[in-house]
Amino acid sequence: MNDHQEEHLESAEWLRDIVIGMSDGLTVPFALAAGLSGAVQSTGIIIIAGIAEIAAGSIAMGLGGYLAGKTEIDHYNSELKREHEEVELVPEKEKEEVREFFQNLGLSEEVQQKAVEEIAQDKQKWVDFMMKHELGLEKPDPKRATKSALNIGLSYVIGGLVPLSPYFFIDTPVEALKISSLVTLLCLFTFGYFKSRMTGVHPWAGALKVMLIGAVAASAAFGVAKIFEG
Amino acid sequence: MNDHQEEHLESAEWLRDIVIGMSDGLTVPFALAAGLSGAVQSTGIIIIAGIAEIAAGSIAMGLGGYLAGKTEIDHYNSELKREHEEVELVPEKEKEEVREFFQNLGLSEEVQQKAVEEIAQDKQKWVDFMMKHELGLEKPDPKRATKSALNIGLSYVIGGLVPLSPYFFIDTPVEALKISSLVTLLCLFTFGYFKSRMTGVHPWAGALKVMLIGAVAASAAFGVAKIFEG
Repeated sequence: MNDHQEEHLESAEWLRDIVIGMSDGLTVPFALAAGLSGAVQSTGIIIIAGIAEIAAGSIAMGLGGYLAGKTEIDHYNSELKREHEEVELVPEKEKEEVREFFQNLGLSEEVQQKAVEEIAQDKQKWVDFMMKHELGLEKPDPKRATKSALNIGLSYVIGGLVPLSPYFFIDTPVEALKISSLVTLLCLFTFGYFKSRMTGVHPWAGALKVMLIGAVAASAAFGVAKIFEG
Repeated sequence: MNDHQEEHLESAEWLRDIVIGMSDGLTVPFALAAGLSGAVQSTGIIIIAGIAEIAAGSIAMGLGGYLAGKTEIDHYNSELKREHEEVELVPEKEKEEVREFFQNLGLSEEVQQKAVEEIAQDKQKWVDFMMKHELGLEKPDPKRATKSALNIGLSYVIGGLVPLSPYFFIDTPVEALKISSLVTLLCLFTFGYFKSRMTGVHPWAGALKVMLIGAVAASAAFGVAKIFEG
């Protein structure tokens, strides 16, 4: 019965990256192409704009994710160094922080005191405790940052090519938009379903939400581009 | 000395939302406009594409954030219900999970046992403990989702108008791109600085990173659009 914790870990991280990159990649290039379809007569310009957006978006997401991952590692290491120093320099203050943690759990003073003593016996254990429960930091995996960035960036490119592809084959923007909308909304629904299943609740509702975001974004882009064209 | 935990909380959440929305809003519309500047002769089309992107991106980010926030609340409530049920139906199993938490902290069996007994005395305290320390879930603020979405979405619009504005006043795309690059990279640097200060480490390095992402995305979009134009 109580296997819901395991479920969260079960979904492979690379699969999550792909689904994130792909559902975002589907949304914005789709909406951009839709917006331009209402405002320009040639599909050539939509393809160029779409490709430029896919390049920009995938790099912003991929490189952004990579650098954010690196920053997380730096942050973890600098805090780790700080906790090691504090445990050496101000042990009483650090012990008090450990005690406060157990106090906040609602434990009696006797148990608080014993727990503090036991944790403070081993400095490595003590520092690990402070990192995790005082600062709420988990040790980041250094390889994850690179892999995650690559997966998200590539998935964004693949996702972005879906709404754009009809414009390669159909010359009239508004006609291409019809096929693009059909295919993209279907894909958004599918990816929304998997994205929601991975994060935990109501896959059907999640699928609808992700599709809705795409539809609203595309409609707004279409409307706004129409206004600026006029 | 040990005020680094407080620092993290200090930075107001609305400010973080604005900086996130604005630095993302600066990046992608900037890169898209740069890409189109290499491929089209008229700034009119760049403005329409840029406006369409801003509409699409702000809705995807804002609405996406809003719905993600709502999902988080649903998820929290469904897990909360489950824990309440489990504490009633399988108390021994839940006690064992509490004990394992204290075991993983490296505490002695005596302290583990006492801590479990004290926590299990009060069912509300017990459920709170399971939510926070077994599942790692914090109670989400229902109003945050809406506010956060609005702040991020609006900031994306404002951020996106920065790289686009030179195209309103300058007729030659490549000339407008020069001003756009100067202004946008400066803004990205500034926002990168504040973004990094809020998350914790090396604001100057963070400022450079955020600016770099923008520059790489814009260069790639420019290059890719050139290829597809030819």
